[in-house]
Amino acid sequence: MTTNASDASAAAALEVAFHPKSIAVAGVSPGRTGWGGGLMFYRSAAHFGRVERAYAINPKGGELADGSPIYTSLAEIPGDVDLVISAVPASAILGLIDDAVAKGVKVIHSFTAGFAETGDEDRVELEAQMLAKLRAGGIRLIGPNCMGIHSPIAGVSWMDESSTEVGRVALASQSGMHASEIVRLGEQRAVRFSYAVSYGNASDLNESDYLDYFADNDETDVVLAYLEGVKDGPRFLRTARRLAAKKPLIVLKGGLTEAGSRAASSHTGSLAGSAQIWEAVRRQANFISVLNTDELLDAAITVQHLRALAGPRVAVVGGGGGTSVLAADACGRLGIPVPWLTEATQRTLGEHTPVAGTSVRNPVDSNITWNQDHFQESLATIAADSNIDWLLLHFGLDAGPGVGDPSERRQFEDRMVENIREASTTLSKPLAVAIRPPSSVSGMEADLRIKQELGAAGVAVYPSVEACALAVRRFLDWRAASD
Amino acid sequence: MTTNASDASAAAALEVAFHPKSIAVAGVSPGRTGWGGGLMFYRSAAHFGRVERAYAINPKGGELADGSPIYTSLAEIPGDVDLVISAVPASAILGLIDDAVAKGVKVIHSFTAGFAETGDEDRVELEAQMLAKLRAGGIRLIGPNCMGIHSPIAGVSWMDESSTEVGRVALASQSGMHASEIVRLGEQRAVRFSYAVSYGNASDLNESDYLDYFADNDETDVVLAYLEGVKDGPRFLRTARRLAAKKPLIVLKGGLTEAGSRAASSHTGSLAGSAQIWEAVRRQANFISVLNTDELLDAAITVQHLRALAGPRVAVVGGGGGTSVLAADACGRLGIPVPWLTEATQRTLGEHTPVAGTSVRNPVDSNITWNQDHFQESLATIAADSNIDWLLLHFGLDAGPGVGDPSERRQFEDRMVENIREASTTLSKPLAVAIRPPSSVSGMEADLRIKQELGAAGVAVYPSVEACALAVRRFLDWRAASD
Repeated sequence: MTTNASDASAAAALEVAFHPKSIAVAGVSPGRTGWGGGLMFYRSAAHFGRVERAYAINPKGGELADGSPIYTSLAEIPGDVDLVISAVPASAILGLIDDAVAKGVKVIHSFTAGFAETGDEDRVELEAQMLAKLRAGGIRLIGPNCMGIHSPIAGVSWMDESSTEVGRVALASQSGMHASEIVRLGEQRAVRFSYAVSYGNASDLNESDYLDYFADNDETDVVLAYLEGVKDGPRFLRTARRLAAKKPLIVLKGGLTEAGSRAASSHTGSLAGSAQIWEAVRRQANFISVLNTDELLDAAITVQHLRALAGPRVAVVGGGGGTSVLAADACGRLGIPVPWLTEATQRTLGEHTPVAGTSVRNPVDSNITWNQDHFQESLATIAADSNIDWLLLHFGLDAGPGVGDPSERRQFEDRMVENIREASTTLSKPLAVAIRPPSSVSGMEADLRIKQELGAAGVAVYPSVEACALAVRRFLDWRAASD
Repeated sequence: MTTNASDASAAAALEVAFHPKSIAVAGVSPGRTGWGGGLMFYRSAAHFGRVERAYAINPKGGELADGSPIYTSLAEIPGDVDLVISAVPASAILGLIDDAVAKGVKVIHSFTAGFAETGDEDRVELEAQMLAKLRAGGIRLIGPNCMGIHSPIAGVSWMDESSTEVGRVALASQSGMHASEIVRLGEQRAVRFSYAVSYGNASDLNESDYLDYFADNDETDVVLAYLEGVKDGPRFLRTARRLAAKKPLIVLKGGLTEAGSRAASSHTGSLAGSAQIWEAVRRQANFISVLNTDELLDAAITVQHLRALAGPRVAVVGGGGGTSVLAADACGRLGIPVPWLTEATQRTLGEHTPVAGTSVRNPVDSNITWNQDHFQESLATIAADSNIDWLLLHFGLDAGPGVGDPSERRQFEDRMVENIREASTTLSKPLAVAIRPPSSVSGMEADLRIKQELGAAGVAVYPSVEACALAVRRFLDWRAASD
């Protein structure tokens, strides 16, 4: 399709693709695990239980392990098919499109790779033939060379282990691996998705089609994107501006260095562009730009949970003097001031703080995170201080000497989670939490549990003070530019 | 003590402190866990089994859980005491020093905090009295407000869970929490220490005394430091220059922002100085400067295991197109070129690489990390390419769909570790490994095991491509400045 492809046609196709009542997975190999055999796409429908009919297709026929029939072709399927997911070999795609036209299918996702992105002449030609056939048949294409649709709303996905909860964050990712990782790690941090799409080569539907759809979609409040190339620069700028004026847009752009650009060309056949041009686009459209998938999720959590931030001045609260020094440095380097608290605040905090080896000035290196007895009143005292705009609580979950036995630790952690949840709803200023990455198995178990518990309660949780300070800095800059 | 304190006296005291035959822990509370009651220092001697005699002191006497006597005073101890570790209340320190003078002790470590770092007038005065008494009695002091000595060689430590293996990396850290974390996380990455010291307020022995000792110490090849303040700037510059001319010095400097500087003042009473001055010092002395404890360990691993690097040009090898794009961007942003491999190399690699959705150009997004069948020959082919100076292999350890059952995964991981170990000894160019931080319990288990196995074999392992690229960039800059 050309860049003049009708927006209305794209929106209609995506409306079907994100809400199919029936799906057919072509090229299912019952014996293969992973994604190669297409089975995962079929099984995800059962995992969510929301699609009315899911069909498997393989020219050899037979049946799946659960006894379901494997149809030999699209034609053989008795009912309508809204979305075809293709895991057939690249060489079989043209035949599948013929079948889809005959069946009245309006949108195909091609998981299959091996087209223009390889740079091979005959595969570039095959992609051109595929596109001509699709256009003639009135079918829109997601991909090729991608994971396709993840729609918790409709119950379609590339995996069968995802949360079935529906959220309000949408993702468009050119890379399948990044799409999977962002959804998986996002779910660990209680980010819940409305839709995600991995769209690979973007031979037909491209980044602007997906972003246009999310801009107008009432189920979506925040939009994330991983882009390698941009098919149509002027349209992308128009789309990004329109979207960013309605809801926060956060973009991870791959290929902004010479090395990365060459890699993007090999990966999805994209022309990636320069960092200077990209920064000009970012300023004009006013989206938040990030450098990796963790930062993408940090930004998503910030725009969701820290909207009430009135300014940058932070009270950094946690145990450990050296850790406090580096936390303050990390904030300072990013232009997040850590001003001393007023003397009145220090006096009040001092009532419950051992004098030796601690500080109540800011950073507050008190024993708040080790002794929960005065947690609420200490945080309330800090929040009331006119020198600060928000609070950042930081701690780690790995056991140290004398931390006690596992059940005592679990009790302590549960109490801390409850305390943080309560503080996040009662404090007069926003509260963020940084949990140091775990370095033990017990720490990992606690980290996964607590991120989920706090995130589900609407608490903004980050993997480090640096990560939080960077996300807040970007959020404040973005908001200032929005005014 | 003044800044003119004899270097020889400091060196002699540290020789004793790092190799005590006998230690006495004053202020042991048998009922307390953690560090507060001093018991951990006593127990560490038993853990290592290298100190000849360890004594516990408490004015109340009694005995420990293991039946050992608790002496009521230093005087009551029958034999000599080389190192006194003080966990007594700050108010009792003067009496302890009197006892130590009478006993002929030459060096004391004061774990106890609550001195000048509090900013309280009477506690500043107490610290001055303590120093006068020490000087009059000819005793040198480590601390106060610190964890003191960790010497696997002598079997003295602040913890009883450390590796008993002796290495060749020394650490001087003003912060106790950072000292503990650096040793603990370092050991997870197979970094082995000769000595570490946490020295807190540095009221007597200061950063230059410790660095001077490590400079002349034959057991130490690499020196790490976490500094907040510098007591004597000119001496520090002299010491750092002298040390850095003999062995790699890597420094994490806290308090280089206004906020961090104020925090350092509360933590260890330090005047931290500005980032501009610090950068001038770094250039003159030519050490490696880092921004957090992870980067400190990344740098330590780099100077130990990647000395053979001939240049910056890297081949980035791993699975996942989008991951490869961002890996290349991370290298590119840090001035680590990721040049295309020669056509001959690409052809050879192509023989074992599926064409669809992969690249053999560089980044090499082939299936090397997923299919180990052609691992050695593929890496050897890449290493032979004249366009690159080193190889960076990157992967993650979290299970994905279709990764198989745990025992199959373990087999795969074991084979990969064996392959990497073999490659690291046979390849014609240096090999580094980046393992993405785990995000699952099984991934954490594998991560802890594999970092240990690879690190022990002398393989440089990093938590991310970014971390590796940054460490290599700093290493190459440092080496260029050393020439």
